[in-house]
Parts: sequence; structure tokens; C-alpha cells
Amino acid sequence: MRPTSETLRHAALDQLQSRDGQLLIGGESVSAILERVGRTPFYAYDRQAIATRVAQLRAALPEGMRLHYAIKANPMPALVAHMAGLVDGFDVASAGELRIALAAGMAPGCIGFAGPGKSVPELQAAVAAGITIHAESEREIAILHDLGSRDRRPRLAIRVNPAFELKTAGMKMGGGASQFGIDAERVPALLRSLDTARVEFRGFHVFAGSQNLSATAISEAQSQTLLLVEQLAADAPGPVAELNIGGGLGIPYFPGERPVDLAAVGTALAQLAARARRTLPGTRLIIELGRYLVGEAGYYVCRIIDRKLSRGRVFLVTDGGLHHHLAASGNFGQVVRKNYPVVIASRLDQPPAEIASVVGPLCTPLDLLADAMLFPQAGPGDLVAVLQSGAYGCSASPHGFLGHPEPLEILV
Amino acid sequence: MRPTSETLRHAALDQLQSRDGQLLIGGESVSAILERVGRTPFYAYDRQAIATRVAQLRAALPEGMRLHYAIKANPMPALVAHMAGLVDGFDVASAGELRIALAAGMAPGCIGFAGPGKSVPELQAAVAAGITIHAESEREIAILHDLGSRDRRPRLAIRVNPAFELKTAGMKMGGGASQFGIDAERVPALLRSLDTARVEFRGFHVFAGSQNLSATAISEAQSQTLLLVEQLAADAPGPVAELNIGGGLGIPYFPGERPVDLAAVGTALAQLAARARRTLPGTRLIIELGRYLVGEAGYYVCRIIDRKLSRGRVFLVTDGGLHHHLAASGNFGQVVRKNYPVVIASRLDQPPAEIASVVGPLCTPLDLLADAMLFPQAGPGDLVAVLQSGAYGCSASPHGFLGHPEPLEILV
Repeated sequence: MRPTSETLRHAALDQLQSRDGQLLIGGESVSAILERVGRTPFYAYDRQAIATRVAQLRAALPEGMRLHYAIKANPMPALVAHMAGLVDGFDVASAGELRIALAAGMAPGCIGFAGPGKSVPELQAAVAAGITIHAESEREIAILHDLGSRDRRPRLAIRVNPAFELKTAGMKMGGGASQFGIDAERVPALLRSLDTARVEFRGFHVFAGSQNLSATAISEAQSQTLLLVEQLAADAPGPVAELNIGGGLGIPYFPGERPVDLAAVGTALAQLAARARRTLPGTRLIIELGRYLVGEAGYYVCRIIDRKLSRGRVFLVTDGGLHHHLAASGNFGQVVRKNYPVVIASRLDQPPAEIASVVGPLCTPLDLLADAMLFPQAGPGDLVAVLQSGAYGCSASPHGFLGHPEPLEILV
Repeated sequence: MRPTSETLRHAALDQLQSRDGQLLIGGESVSAILERVGRTPFYAYDRQAIATRVAQLRAALPEGMRLHYAIKANPMPALVAHMAGLVDGFDVASAGELRIALAAGMAPGCIGFAGPGKSVPELQAAVAAGITIHAESEREIAILHDLGSRDRRPRLAIRVNPAFELKTAGMKMGGGASQFGIDAERVPALLRSLDTARVEFRGFHVFAGSQNLSATAISEAQSQTLLLVEQLAADAPGPVAELNIGGGLGIPYFPGERPVDLAAVGTALAQLAARARRTLPGTRLIIELGRYLVGEAGYYVCRIIDRKLSRGRVFLVTDGGLHHHLAASGNFGQVVRKNYPVVIASRLDQPPAEIASVVGPLCTPLDLLADAMLFPQAGPGDLVAVLQSGAYGCSASPHGFLGHPEPLEILV
């Protein structure tokens, strides 16, 4: 572990708000939030930041484009309920997420369910709820025909595995062979085999990848998506009611990364929507976002328990770590570990003073939240915050590992 | 994803037992175990395999050497209770693990507690329980002095960060700067500062690394550990009652890896123990193992839900995945992802027929249990087992991710 270059700055640090040296989350100081929560470690999500992000998107997106929230990014029920008042629909990835979506009050007709390997009970629950099922395979389509009847036709969309992929995406989910969706070249025959007496054909879902910071790459994939669906529509058993073009907008996690150019994405989407009004009249365009809506609104807060000097290096040992925030430790999809933006949340008014590493309490060298970053001098009692932690943080971490307390969550 | 070389075989496949094509776990067929558990996915642990492994160790270790189980490897309470009847002590890494250790009936005097960043309540609980605390910092030693009195002296051992490291270890935890232990060069002054009226000095703990398959490297580190402690003992405030030499014995996970040469480790330990009888008379030598005791006794079992063909590749989509078995997905410490040993547990009598990938139900390409391995032809209903899954499997995985059911656990 060597000091990382500080010449490349974390973009999220430029957005920080503070008062008297304390990080502000939703206008409240981190210590005031800690008093409400009662103990560290906890995740805090800023409801106003989420609303602001949705408003920015609304302003950038063409009129009539539907905005869906992908619950897998953050399934905290209170956050999902907050989101229900902001967006036009939800996407769920399991029966568990479906229950959260319904409990939040979202209309079933505005919920989509994608994901490979859906079990029969999951498909039954989805049909019973009246949501739209994004079929990922011929098997799922066959089961939906079995479950369907004239009285209750399952709402069926087809998730297509395109032949193209989302360039520069953090996670590619289309192009080449994939467990996601049905290969585009097999879709026309499949469309012709649908029995609309037993299933209600709703449309298509194409998801090319996620965590992309390039507006050009995102817009290219969206344009190719529309082209693909225009072709597929010729074999559809009826009008294409919905087209979920996926999401893919990333957020800047690592030094040197910049926010995606939302205006550029919006301009390209306006052209896309204009074209779709001609080529696919009556089709509702849906953009599905998870991380982009909530990722920057979340903070993971833990407390320094010990300050250790070892052979010239400083370790700040906290009560939080990998068991609560796997992604920040670098063990969730990263090939080369990079630091998330991490701050001493109780000393934002103090100048950088030393290079230190923030580690958790686990007996493994993997438990690393910040590797040799520049911080003000800090010690036991100080609070550490990991920024950009609103998505794929709490729910994507191994809470039980080594028997420490669960992380708490608060929406402020 | 390309087919991996099958010229290098998984060592664990040579140990498999089967009957009528069914994997046997503890002499029971996997389908019989599934009937008891009621559903997939589940972890099954073979209690006889654990007992056999402990017996092998007992036969290889020098007489009088104490064998401890590190609960962090697998904290399932029933497994820990089984282990209580087999080993001489437990090592815990949190207050949560301490409660499991005590519930299993282990004598407090035979429990050690190591781990950085112990909180004051954790240290209080450890003192109240009468276990031995492996202090990781000057701060912990100061707190133990504060908590101690003539009537109740905390049992204190010092975890030393040696200047050497365990060569070829999967996880290095000593050598250079580290969050683990106290730098060896600072220990003498610290020993002289101990107030034995307030704390009971017990000895030392040196843990150089884990998941090592080289008997030579392990024995070298153990030899260096003894040398280090012989030097440190000169400044100790009393006799060294205990020396925990760590563990580090690995198990073969990946193709081409071979089991550690236990006889060689045992021979070297016998020489070490003979030397320690002269240089540290009366010191109880402890070897602490987690993964080596339970890792090979555990199986993660899931069911194939869908069989998908995509552009020439076969995907077997299961109801289990990364959310239950993060390590097998390659997202827990591996830099380059390699396949765990994975089998079609319901078709062990059938010849290899195709290259297929086993993926889970999560909407992320990270959810991969087997990347292009050679399997018999398999499809929906078949059972998949991930071998070598008894350690750092269930408890080290993000169960809540994407809202699927929790994994179940059974000890057979």
C-alpha cells in the first residue's frame, strides 16, 4: 500500500456541505444525526438530495419519458416509499423487492420485474400482483403462458440481449453471450409464438450495462436500442406499449472521474424520443435508474476506535468496515482497488495533515476503507464518512461477517 | 469468459463421495439432505469430516500442543458446539463471536479474543467473561489496565506484528506496517510498563498470514515466531503462559493447488515444541486454525432454475449465487477470478458433456459461480454443489442483496 496520488481529486468532495467542521447531510450535522441514530456505524440517506436529483433528471429528460427506480440499488423501505412519490415506476429483481415495491404504494402497472432464473413462485407472485414481467428466457415465457388465462393474462415484456454492448460501462450486461435477456436474433420467432389469449404483450427491455460516465457511450447504446426494437416490433403480436431502454448512468466514485454530462444525455434522448414518436407511436419510453438516483445521496458513517502507528504508517481503526460496505473495501467488482471518497466527517474545517489508512475491525487485511489518503489529524471519537454510498452499499455487504453489530439506516 | 484449462484439476474433486450419481455429504445423499432442509439454497457441513480433520491434526501435531478453532471461519452455532467437543479452545474476533463461544460451552480460560479496534463494551464483556484478550494496541492495554483490579485482573496477551511475513500466504497479516498487532520493536518497552497488579500477563499471539499451502513457508514463519517470542520473553513481567503461533494452513481451492503437507508441518512443529520446552519452559503452545478445520467439510447447494443458450454458450441459472457465496463468485479477495470446485451434485455418475457457466439469479454479471467449466449435461431441477465451502462462505456473504431468501445451514 503506497500513498495514492492526490493530484486526481474525488469529484464528490466538491459537493460537500459542512458547518463548524461537521459534515452536513440533508442540512443536519453528522453528530446531530448520530444522536438520533444512537450509535455508529450507520448509513444516512439525504431525501432532499434524492428529490433534487430526480428534478434534475426531469428537467433533462424529454417530456413524456418515464423514469423508473431500480430498487436493487437501495431497497431501504423508507427510501423506496420516498421514491414512490418522485418517480413513475419501479423495477424489481426478486419477490422480496416486489413486496417492498408494493408496500411503498407503487401501482402494479408501473412495476417491472427483470432478472434471470425467476422461480415459479416468483412468477406466480408477479402475475398475482399484476406487474410486468421482463422475461429472460424461453422457459419464463412458457411458464407465463401456463399461468395465464383469459381472465388474468400475465403482462409480459421481453428482455433482449442485444448484439451490441455499452462501451466503457463499469458493468457490461449485453453484447456477446450473456445470462441476461434473450439473444436478439431469437426474439422474432419467439414474438410470433406468443399466445395473446394467454399473455399480454407489453414490450421490450434492453439493458446494455451500468455505471457509465460517458454520455456519448450511453447515447450510442440508447440509439442502438431503439433501432433494435424498431426491427423487433415488426414481429410483435401487437403494439409495443413499453420500451425500457435501461439506464447505465454512473456516478463518479474514484479520483479523476467526472459526473456524466446529463445535458448531453438529455439532448440525445430528446432526439431519440422524437424518432420513437414516428417509428413506435404510442410506445411509452422508460429509463430505469438506480445508482444514479440514490448513490450520491448516501453516506456511511463510522467512528474511529483506535489510532495506530505501525512502522511509519498511520492506521485509523473504525467500528465500521467491509462487513457494512463491501464496495468501499474494493471487494465488489473492482479489479484494481481504488479509494472511495472518504472524509473525517467531524473535522472538515481542518487542513490535511497526514497520510493515513482507514481500516475496519475485522481480522482480515481486506477490511480497508481508505488506503493511504490525505486527512486532517484524527483519532478515537472522530467520525469517518464514506461518500457516494447510497447505492449498493448497505444491502450489498456481508453484515454477519465476524459477528459485529448490523449497520443502521436513516433517511434524513 | 473463455473455457478455462481443465488440465489442472481441482484437488477437492478427488475426495468426492457419491452413490447413484448423488453427491454424499456425511454419508447422506444430497437429495436426502435437501428433503430435510426443505428448500435450496443451503449450506451443508459434514460433522464427521470435521472430526476426521481434527484427528488428522492431532496425529500430526506434537503432544501437548493446543489446537484452537477460529470461529470467524464458520460461526454456525451448531458447528461451533460440535467443535467445542473436539478442540482445546476457541478464538473469537468480536463480542458476537464471544457469545457463540460461551454458548457452545467452551471454558473461558480457553478462549482468546483478537482483532483491531475492540470497543470498550467489547473489552468489558471479554473481561467479565474471563477470556484472554489479545491486545492489538497500546490503547487496548491502557483500557484493560483501567478495567482491571486486584479482584479481577484482565487476562492479557500481546498480539505482535512481526517484522517478517508469511511467504506465499493468501492473506498476509504480518510484516511491514499493519493494523494487526503491535510492532515487535515496540513490545519490550510495553511489556515493562505492564502493571501485573491490574492485568494478568498471559503471553503472546503472532499471526503472520493465512491460506498458505506451503509447509516450508508455514514452518519458517512458526520458527521465526518462536525466535521472536524467545527474545520478547526477556522483558515479560512473568512467565509466558501461552504462545498462540497463529495458523495459516490453507486448503486447495483452485485448479492445480495441492493440499498442504501436514506431515511436514507436524515434523517441523515437533522440533519447534522441543526447542520451546527448553527456551520457554511451561509455555503452552497454541495453533489456531479456522479454514483448515472446516473449509473442506462444507458444501453450498443450489438448484438449477433455468438453462440458457446464448450465442453458443450454456448458462445454468441457479437459485443460489453471490449473495450466499461471495468468495466463490470471485469477489472476496481474489485479484484474478478462478473457479471454485463446482459439480452437478445430482449427476456425478454422468460423463462430462459440455462447457457451461453456472450463474446466480442476481441482475449483475458478478453473480458467477462457475465460469466455463466442464460438466455433464444438466438442466432445471438438477442440484449444483460448490465444494470447499465450509469456511468464509455463508457468514461472509451479502445475504440481503437483491432480496432473495437467506441461505439455510445444516450440520449433518
